[in-house]
Amino acid sequence: MRWVGDPLIGEGVVERRFDLEVETRVVPGILWTPEGAHGPRPIVLIGHGATRHKRVSHVLALARHLVRGHEFAVAAIDCPAHGDRRADRKADDIQIFADFLAEWSRPGSVDDMIAEWAATLEAVRSLEEVGDGPVGYWGLSMGTIYGLPFTASEPRVQVAVFGLMGLVGPTRERLAADALRVNCPVLFIQQWDDQLLPRPDVLALFDALATLDKRLHAHPGDHAAVPVEEVEFSISFLARHLGP
Amino acid sequence: MRWVGDPLIGEGVVERRFDLEVETRVVPGILWTPEGAHGPRPIVLIGHGATRHKRVSHVLALARHLVRGHEFAVAAIDCPAHGDRRADRKADDIQIFADFLAEWSRPGSVDDMIAEWAATLEAVRSLEEVGDGPVGYWGLSMGTIYGLPFTASEPRVQVAVFGLMGLVGPTRERLAADALRVNCPVLFIQQWDDQLLPRPDVLALFDALATLDKRLHAHPGDHAAVPVEEVEFSISFLARHLGP
Repeated sequence: MRWVGDPLIGEGVVERRFDLEVETRVVPGILWTPEGAHGPRPIVLIGHGATRHKRVSHVLALARHLVRGHEFAVAAIDCPAHGDRRADRKADDIQIFADFLAEWSRPGSVDDMIAEWAATLEAVRSLEEVGDGPVGYWGLSMGTIYGLPFTASEPRVQVAVFGLMGLVGPTRERLAADALRVNCPVLFIQQWDDQLLPRPDVLALFDALATLDKRLHAHPGDHAAVPVEEVEFSISFLARHLGP
Repeated sequence: MRWVGDPLIGEGVVERRFDLEVETRVVPGILWTPEGAHGPRPIVLIGHGATRHKRVSHVLALARHLVRGHEFAVAAIDCPAHGDRRADRKADDIQIFADFLAEWSRPGSVDDMIAEWAATLEAVRSLEEVGDGPVGYWGLSMGTIYGLPFTASEPRVQVAVFGLMGLVGPTRERLAADALRVNCPVLFIQQWDDQLLPRPDVLALFDALATLDKRLHAHPGDHAAVPVEEVEFSISFLARHLGP
């Protein structure tokens, strides 16, 4: 784990950019911690959506709220073909989405991302100011495509927020199988008029989650129109399960 | 409106039992207000579920939280064939449910209940300690069967919590038509494994609600297993829309 540049410090939050080597890949990430943090604390891992990146506004807002309001640590990494993992930093969304679809279709894509999240978790928990506290995961859409299999494979994840995904696409069978291994409390967010995802496929993924401590929250609107209400609920949900 | 017996006063909450004459019927109700209340305040009307009554434990808990935590007024009335409207106060749940199904099937059942809620609202708002503040409605299952048409007919209702109901039963067409007239913010609660209600019929009722400010919250479990989480969310949802 190598720090990149200087920390950004503001309103009680320390933001540090890092690079992490995982197998042959360099994974760019950000760690947010409370200013002056000492000792172990809960950590939330945030997986961004397709065409976005580790510091997109709602990820940043969620991270800052969890750090300021609850003294948690938060980490986010760029997915393959996104953010600082792209050579062409000015690619348009259509190009990035096309690259993501190719990556999603690549055998090993999910397992590689699981390895990256596991390595990130290991690295940040080795820091004294993060330590071995409880772990949560938050990720919608592409953040669920990769984060749900990660959660299924990672017993240290004690609570998760998923959504904006269904049993569709190249890894739908993997998603269905991994959902049967998710046993932690889950908040699942659906957009009722999602133009990317048929309702029945979304409901089937919620249905497949093994845990009985799950709740589906659905709102009108298209894929990306998740209301602030669910960011607020995510924060209180994560805090309730990870906090003291 | 005639008060029945003495007020119950405890932990800041005044509970008063009343009878109200509506057409030829006597409607038994309860009004909860903050101790020492003066002047107008928001009021929440609570419709109980089939086989329950106006003072069943979750209605009482919701009322007390809204009064204590938010200084609201709360009113609940017994539905026909329930609570103090029964001659045989010791009837078993099967008998009460059978009587409710007969009542639900009676033409005019919904309109009679709308008249009873409207009269209740009028009566309690005429009290100085309730006044003409904003109005909310909370009612699941039978509380939605009657409360959704009431909300559709009553422009003073500014926010509603519905659920545990779908487009089923003798008034399903009325429900579908009235849903198209519900324009206030709505929380809709579903039990994912509801043994009384097929999922598609429940989702169809949520879908039919005209308002775009609606959210579906679904949890595992049977009809009556709504978790405390949704009582808590109901309180903050009602408070956000009715409070200062």
